Amino acid sequence: MRYDIAIVGSGPAGLAASINAKIRNKNIIVFGNNNASTKLTKAPSIDNYLGFENLSGVELKDKFMSHIKSMGIEITEKRVNNIYSMGDYFTLISGGDMYEATTVVMATGVEYGKMLKGEEEYLGKGVGYCATCDGALYRNKKVAIIGSNHEGEEDANFLREIASEVYYIPTYKMINKLDDEIKIIEDRPVEIKGDNLANKLVLKNQELEVDGIFIIKDSVSPKYMVPGLEVEGPHIKCDKDMKTSIAGLYVAGDCAGKPYQYLKSAGQGQIAVSSAISYLDKKRIKN
Amino acid sequence: MRYDIAIVGSGPAGLAASINAKIRNKNIIVFGNNNASTKLTKAPSIDNYLGFENLSGVELKDKFMSHIKSMGIEITEKRVNNIYSMGDYFTLISGGDMYEATTVVMATGVEYGKMLKGEEEYLGKGVGYCATCDGALYRNKKVAIIGSNHEGEEDANFLREIASEVYYIPTYKMINKLDDEIKIIEDRPVEIKGDNLANKLVLKNQELEVDGIFIIKDSVSPKYMVPGLEVEGPHIKCDKDMKTSIAGLYVAGDCAGKPYQYLKSAGQGQIAVSSAISYLDKKRIKN
Repeated sequence: MRYDIAIVGSGPAGLAASINAKIRNKNIIVFGNNNASTKLTKAPSIDNYLGFENLSGVELKDKFMSHIKSMGIEITEKRVNNIYSMGDYFTLISGGDMYEATTVVMATGVEYGKMLKGEEEYLGKGVGYCATCDGALYRNKKVAIIGSNHEGEEDANFLREIASEVYYIPTYKMINKLDDEIKIIEDRPVEIKGDNLANKLVLKNQELEVDGIFIIKDSVSPKYMVPGLEVEGPHIKCDKDMKTSIAGLYVAGDCAGKPYQYLKSAGQGQIAVSSAISYLDKKRIKN
Repeated sequence: MRYDIAIVGSGPAGLAASINAKIRNKNIIVFGNNNASTKLTKAPSIDNYLGFENLSGVELKDKFMSHIKSMGIEITEKRVNNIYSMGDYFTLISGGDMYEATTVVMATGVEYGKMLKGEEEYLGKGVGYCATCDGALYRNKKVAIIGSNHEGEEDANFLREIASEVYYIPTYKMINKLDDEIKIIEDRPVEIKGDNLANKLVLKNQELEVDGIFIIKDSVSPKYMVPGLEVEGPHIKCDKDMKTSIAGLYVAGDCAGKPYQYLKSAGQGQIAVSSAISYLDKKRIKN
């Protein structure tokens, strides 16, 4: 099954996009979570979303989700790890699952955090962002997982079944759900070192000799998520119609640039879907 | 007094812009009317403004205006006829009044209607859009006013005090507030003719020999409103930061291009103000 539009992200940009796409009777899949976005739910007060006076982030999130549900839009609670342009369509990878869509709207936010020293250099050479995708490479080997959220713990438990030794370095306040065999290292990651491949994780107070390092974060810079995508600093390069450098791929919200504001993001979600629909229409006429 | 930001238009784009500017403590003036926008109030149902389920246009307008009022934003109920870039600031002309602002956000919509044959050719040569601005040119002369709203009647009454003969051609359902001396012509305007200057209004069933013709419409194409502004068809040329071809002038909403949707317009209002504030900040540092 191939979707017309895959919407990646469930913040204001992704949700506004999904409403527009649904109204236009497109066959869509929306990746994200039913809490909309962490950034939104943490906002103490929102004053500049035209039409709503002084709501908390949670109140606004509840209104958004109620609106989504009333339109029969389901959110697929999975994280998209990679998006590949196949020319005529896109393949989206989420752990071990694959999805196909003719167009994609990326609304993935901009909270990637700072990269570790060496992270970029060794990405794909011993460093990965997705344990489900690349775990099999490390059978009977030593791996370290730097986790910035609870998903990191699930990935660590999964890797323990494969790898000979698993270190877990939490960068958040952990509620321990780890298997006993996993070694928790309470220390701050500083650098990734290696030769051709990464082989050492340097922490503030120690070094770990490992064969692979997984970094599990809330979101991954779009240039690693989508091979070939042009970026401008932390943002995806786009024009005023929200077109990116890849035909059929559109962008909305914080990942499309500043200002980082909910109403701006939602508005861009509408534009991105409108552009995606034009693209679908042109494709249909051509085929 | 010079405003930091003049916002021209009170639809979703202008209102969202005004909220953002107010939150950022800018000294603003908002031109428009307290009914927000005619297009909005006429909408039977709005489904795709994220957060609001199935509201009528009037209900959404009421929420917008309540939000505006709660923030202490006043709307100046005047129509801006022309905006002139003075290099370091802008002069906005509204009838006989002048305003100054360092930056301008144009959120004037895209409902200009079709131009009459000859209208563009004779604009400024016997054809005008603002009776208050140009009325004095027609002292003891004959003028025709093509009115598409009640403001046309006020302009006709004003011109009667100056001109020797006044014809009024309403293109809407008129509630007659005209002075008795004004001749009402119930006929459809077709073309404006002339030599160097316009001197004839051709209607479907008759022709009027006149010295001047005023066309009073809900909005005027931005290229006549702002001399030198680059346009693309009916839209103002802009980039993704809502910058136009004139430094310090920003655009949002329908006049910035498709899709014509409320949430998109509002989001662009936020972006436009954000860009205007960057411009103001840079100017302040330089001076």
